[in-house]
Amino acid sequence: MNAEERVGIDVGGSAIKAGRIARDGQIRAEQTWKTPHFERGPAHVLDGIAELARSLGAREALGIGVPGLLERARGFVVESPNLPGFRDLDVRGELARRLDFQPANIRVENDANAAAVGELWLGGAHGERDALLLTLGTGIGGGLILNGELFAGEGMAGEVGHVVITPDGQPCGCGRRGCVEQYASATAARRRALEAKLPREAPGDLELLAARARENAGPERDLCFAIGRDLGRGIGPVLCLLDIRCFVFGGGFSGALDVLEPGIRVGIDERSYGERQHAVRLVLATLGPKAGWIGAAKLAFA
Amino acid sequence: MNAEERVGIDVGGSAIKAGRIARDGQIRAEQTWKTPHFERGPAHVLDGIAELARSLGAREALGIGVPGLLERARGFVVESPNLPGFRDLDVRGELARRLDFQPANIRVENDANAAAVGELWLGGAHGERDALLLTLGTGIGGGLILNGELFAGEGMAGEVGHVVITPDGQPCGCGRRGCVEQYASATAARRRALEAKLPREAPGDLELLAARARENAGPERDLCFAIGRDLGRGIGPVLCLLDIRCFVFGGGFSGALDVLEPGIRVGIDERSYGERQHAVRLVLATLGPKAGWIGAAKLAFA
Repeated sequence: MNAEERVGIDVGGSAIKAGRIARDGQIRAEQTWKTPHFERGPAHVLDGIAELARSLGAREALGIGVPGLLERARGFVVESPNLPGFRDLDVRGELARRLDFQPANIRVENDANAAAVGELWLGGAHGERDALLLTLGTGIGGGLILNGELFAGEGMAGEVGHVVITPDGQPCGCGRRGCVEQYASATAARRRALEAKLPREAPGDLELLAARARENAGPERDLCFAIGRDLGRGIGPVLCLLDIRCFVFGGGFSGALDVLEPGIRVGIDERSYGERQHAVRLVLATLGPKAGWIGAAKLAFA
Repeated sequence: MNAEERVGIDVGGSAIKAGRIARDGQIRAEQTWKTPHFERGPAHVLDGIAELARSLGAREALGIGVPGLLERARGFVVESPNLPGFRDLDVRGELARRLDFQPANIRVENDANAAAVGELWLGGAHGERDALLLTLGTGIGGGLILNGELFAGEGMAGEVGHVVITPDGQPCGCGRRGCVEQYASATAARRRALEAKLPREAPGDLELLAARARENAGPERDLCFAIGRDLGRGIGPVLCLLDIRCFVFGGGFSGALDVLEPGIRVGIDERSYGERQHAVRLVLATLGPKAGWIGAAKLAFA
């Protein structure tokens, strides 16, 4: 590796993805650690991450994306519901020690934020000044790009998944009720498909749901419209507060964007001032599961 | 006036406020045009604004705050519900012609955004990196400061007043229902005070309402708590999306902030992820009605 290349690592509960990329966006190498054993404790996982970084040729600098609540300035993971044992953990310090890097050269970022940076650099948000990346997966993650750069506020900006769209609605893992991720994440879509007792049932198969919605009018299309509308109701406040126009959709359920879109626009219109639903661009993320490590690597340049 | 001073103008439906200020924040002169006759047409009002600018000694540059929907890049007012006749109006071009200024030296900004810049420069938001100014008046206006600068998105960012807190709730002038400004603006507070049929009624007197709420427990305090909670429900999504911690309150009803605060914190907690209600700072704007022209003038430095 030379100074014109960086290694990025995306830490997930079920797989750790990593790669090396050049400043011009050329991917040099990729590697996935498929079964990190979090139950063996954070030291074991950190050893593995350091090993991954080393084997990819990381020198001097590293970017790492981690789900959960961070103290970004210190590179600490405060709490990570999806990474057992990652709690009050000095990720930056621990990796710096293992790799013999300057701590300041290790950038620790929220994984959704890292993915947004990746999509801005080389994916669906390329060339945008302002954009929100929404990841439709187990929950709804979000990463916010403002003025061409990641905006994190105190660290957790972009958490559109926890915008409440239905007061006293579905209970959410965050302790509140009615968060948009309880209505429009991949998990929620599967639940709603089951509840809807569709005549041509295909439990849990969101691709089939989208395909049928695409095919012809009917209960599948109605369901996708309803899910889209709920998603739009979560996006409405983003327009009120930020007046941005580009929304980039990634995650497992984003393949249904075309059938969600009519509902999304109606939901936006219901929850935002002015006639902006038609001015909004809804686009697909293009980097898939690579977005996180690519963005983390990008953040390690500089 | 020298290059170290700027004139700012804040155009309102019932008064046009203006002043000249030095780069170090010293106010040099102030003037208010109390009865602009909008019914005589925009040319008449623009003549008056130009005259005001001239009499304050504006040379070369000018900042102007206007309520409504703007095309900021071109300095156009697209639509302004509160300024009769201001519609598809080239405010920048018209003033440049009248004053013989370069159009590029005339900065046209939304009035709430201008006020936020004023409060950031010399008021309640001074020294903050990220903050939202909320103006509790006829409606609820908003101006957003991110990374120490005004963030306007496509022009209308910060419109927290139109965040929907109660789907299918009170109808709003924007055409939707349940916008927070229908529950927590000065206008809404007056309406709620009347509806509450308070035992010691003082119709429309919000200062008296706040004073009684401050004094002791009772229906006035309960009402202020309920209004504050609704306001907090509008602020919750701001935390989810931006994770900022400083909220600055201006406008006629902001004097009640101390009695609204307990409710605001509960409302924030109901509508945002994580335990952030106690991390939030709720502070008073300090520039009062001067904030708009001061911010407009600030934007004209550059």
